[in-house]
Amino acid sequence: MLKNDQLDQWDRENFFHPSTHLAQHARGESPTRIVTGGSGCHIVDREGNKLLDAFAGLYCVNVGYGRKEIAEAIADQAKELAYYHSYVGHGTEASITLAKMILDRAPKNMSKVYFGLGGSDANETNVKLIWYYNNILGRPEKKKIISRWRGYHGSGLMTGSLTGLELFHKKFDLPLEQVVHTEAPYFFRRENAEQTESEFVAHCVAELETLISLEGADTIAAFIGEPILGTGGIVPPPAGYWAAIQEVLKKHDILLVADEVVTGFGRLGTMFGSEHYGIEPDLITIAKGMTSAYAPLSGSIVGEKMWTVLEKGTDENGPIGHGWTYSAHPIGAAAGVANLNLIDSLGLIENAGTVGSYLNVQMRQALHEHPHVGDVRGEGMMCAIEFVADKEKRNFFDPAQKIGPQIAAGLLEKGVIGRAMPQGDILGFAPPFCLTKEEADEVVSKTTDVVKSFSF
Amino acid sequence: MLKNDQLDQWDRENFFHPSTHLAQHARGESPTRIVTGGSGCHIVDREGNKLLDAFAGLYCVNVGYGRKEIAEAIADQAKELAYYHSYVGHGTEASITLAKMILDRAPKNMSKVYFGLGGSDANETNVKLIWYYNNILGRPEKKKIISRWRGYHGSGLMTGSLTGLELFHKKFDLPLEQVVHTEAPYFFRRENAEQTESEFVAHCVAELETLISLEGADTIAAFIGEPILGTGGIVPPPAGYWAAIQEVLKKHDILLVADEVVTGFGRLGTMFGSEHYGIEPDLITIAKGMTSAYAPLSGSIVGEKMWTVLEKGTDENGPIGHGWTYSAHPIGAAAGVANLNLIDSLGLIENAGTVGSYLNVQMRQALHEHPHVGDVRGEGMMCAIEFVADKEKRNFFDPAQKIGPQIAAGLLEKGVIGRAMPQGDILGFAPPFCLTKEEADEVVSKTTDVVKSFSF
Repeated sequence: MLKNDQLDQWDRENFFHPSTHLAQHARGESPTRIVTGGSGCHIVDREGNKLLDAFAGLYCVNVGYGRKEIAEAIADQAKELAYYHSYVGHGTEASITLAKMILDRAPKNMSKVYFGLGGSDANETNVKLIWYYNNILGRPEKKKIISRWRGYHGSGLMTGSLTGLELFHKKFDLPLEQVVHTEAPYFFRRENAEQTESEFVAHCVAELETLISLEGADTIAAFIGEPILGTGGIVPPPAGYWAAIQEVLKKHDILLVADEVVTGFGRLGTMFGSEHYGIEPDLITIAKGMTSAYAPLSGSIVGEKMWTVLEKGTDENGPIGHGWTYSAHPIGAAAGVANLNLIDSLGLIENAGTVGSYLNVQMRQALHEHPHVGDVRGEGMMCAIEFVADKEKRNFFDPAQKIGPQIAAGLLEKGVIGRAMPQGDILGFAPPFCLTKEEADEVVSKTTDVVKSFSF
Repeated sequence: MLKNDQLDQWDRENFFHPSTHLAQHARGESPTRIVTGGSGCHIVDREGNKLLDAFAGLYCVNVGYGRKEIAEAIADQAKELAYYHSYVGHGTEASITLAKMILDRAPKNMSKVYFGLGGSDANETNVKLIWYYNNILGRPEKKKIISRWRGYHGSGLMTGSLTGLELFHKKFDLPLEQVVHTEAPYFFRRENAEQTESEFVAHCVAELETLISLEGADTIAAFIGEPILGTGGIVPPPAGYWAAIQEVLKKHDILLVADEVVTGFGRLGTMFGSEHYGIEPDLITIAKGMTSAYAPLSGSIVGEKMWTVLEKGTDENGPIGHGWTYSAHPIGAAAGVANLNLIDSLGLIENAGTVGSYLNVQMRQALHEHPHVGDVRGEGMMCAIEFVADKEKRNFFDPAQKIGPQIAAGLLEKGVIGRAMPQGDILGFAPPFCLTKEEADEVVSKTTDVVKSFSF
């Protein structure tokens, strides 16, 4: 058996970890954690630590760890047929079945699903399809995509441009010019603290209208947004936001992409976040929750309005020039079928709604009066605590103080994984849907302990 | 059990297949083939057809179908731990082991491997790293990427731009402005038929020098190329090409990316195509052969020269803002470890060299005198036949005649899968490495039958 020291050395010598301080890791200044197993909401590492993962990996292991039903579906598919491509009308029983299961669950007016690997490549597909769509419609100028500051839509070149976070732009020459950003629907951080929620929605709408008018509506192809901001800070939209935004988009014939990578398949207690907020998208990005991360799989659900034009495009131009070798990979498809069945049979979406709500209520009760807690917010199985230097003045800490990361580290020492969100001092939670009330209590009590004993 | 008709209907109603004529497929004018299993070089479909897959899926099932060793590694990993992320120094025994195995096999001066999902996203990572590298070096203008016409580097927005094929550009507004293209190293299609191979190499060099001079060397960050053109037509470079090109790149301080998605891990009879052609890359793109497609996994192998700068970048700017949720996915990593071990234990790279060479020699002997065969070419386990309207004048057919696709269809009727390459009438083969001489004979004889009986 391999030794821990040996693996640690191999890791530092060979492995380029994502979102990591590369120099510190190579020099051995940051830990290597080798994860070996998990069950329910817990993971276990090679040194025997058992941790309550209140972030479900990266909000993706929605059904929890160690689900035999999915592991067996993967094993069976691997033995039967690990791979064949899905180009030119090829498929497998699993990929076709999954396509149907997704459409059966999708919001109305959805037509087809294109399968990719991860959320980033699914949004890449979306931008390609949007451009193709407007070319077929004879509107070659209508190509720009509006995204929101603090949106998260991937980490590629175009998708990292859609993402509205500094970490993903700085030193990478992003955003690319085809992407423009508008106001984040982040009520707590509104510039004018006097604004009510509905005044702030009106402000967001006005900002969007101004941007469209500045760029020219005939240059704007689409608007992309997560139903609830995820990596940007776990921020539910203010009441009425989506209805007001959609009115603007319809007026200017701008497509709406709902990025449901985090919210799709149940995280808000409904099958899709679009249902939860009354969003009627033209395209839906899906990934994490489709397989609960048991195998890589993402997708673009294409609405009828776009699909009709895509069909016209291939009648005029022949086969569509888009495809990944691993589109609809059989292992991912088999995992997806088993995962969606498991979510249904265990009633996990309902649990995400009820226990998620319980988690949010308990967290708020425990911490909202704390002098350095500015906001406790969430929806479904998502919850965030935002720390402030001065509660009355709503002053934030200097990022260099790393308040958020320090609190997350303190919580980890107590055996609970939360996540310090990348921009602002925000501690985020997005547990597996199978979280019990007792586990929610543990998350709340340990978080409260850490926050209350922290020297701000 | 699901019925074939039912699956066929579900497929047409719900499944957006890559590289497919969407309208024809939705209308039921093109077939749905549901693949159910495979063994060695053969696949089986739901209607009981057994086919010799002489393209190894999409040149990726290198070890052949039905390998229990890999299926079991996937099954074990799925049961133990299907997923945990690899952000901020996290890993699994499989991902760390695979990182070491890749570096042990990589060309010299390679330092670390970043894991992605498919070849497209790996090239996306490469461009991001190249831009970051030049920003850290204080050369913000040095950002353009030179690719070759007929290169294939993916199907995303930036990676589809790198790809130099019309199908991937048309109606998608590609290539993006950050990518410029130079001459394809395609001796058979050289404009001036009088040129010798070395004169043609000099021509390619001159074209590259002109482009660099036109754009300004201080604006060119990198040059990307496949050791042997793949989807662009399966075209080995003319003798001396890579040495001459590398001299130019060194002179202008331009990074070299070897896209080894097709050639990595043995397809040319050597571990990497770079070895085969004496290429010394700064970055290597890997995907297909790393897992033989049993699970999605790709990677960017970063050379020491770049890695040093990336480390400096994180010392100056903190953690690198790049990551996919499924980077180093445990299922892919486990498949990769098992796959590389299997390639070693079965001596499959040697077989790819010897049987590949046999396939190429036999195909050439059988067909090179045919009046409509302009070229039979290949290297290792890659082989292509290019059809011409007039052999003497080297005139090509009108693409609307679809000669290549018709011949591929004829071959499929005889039970052998080859691939009509997308640009030009070229029939391509890239079989699994386990191809036997008898199977090579079958590919050659059936191809010969189809070509000889075809009404050109």
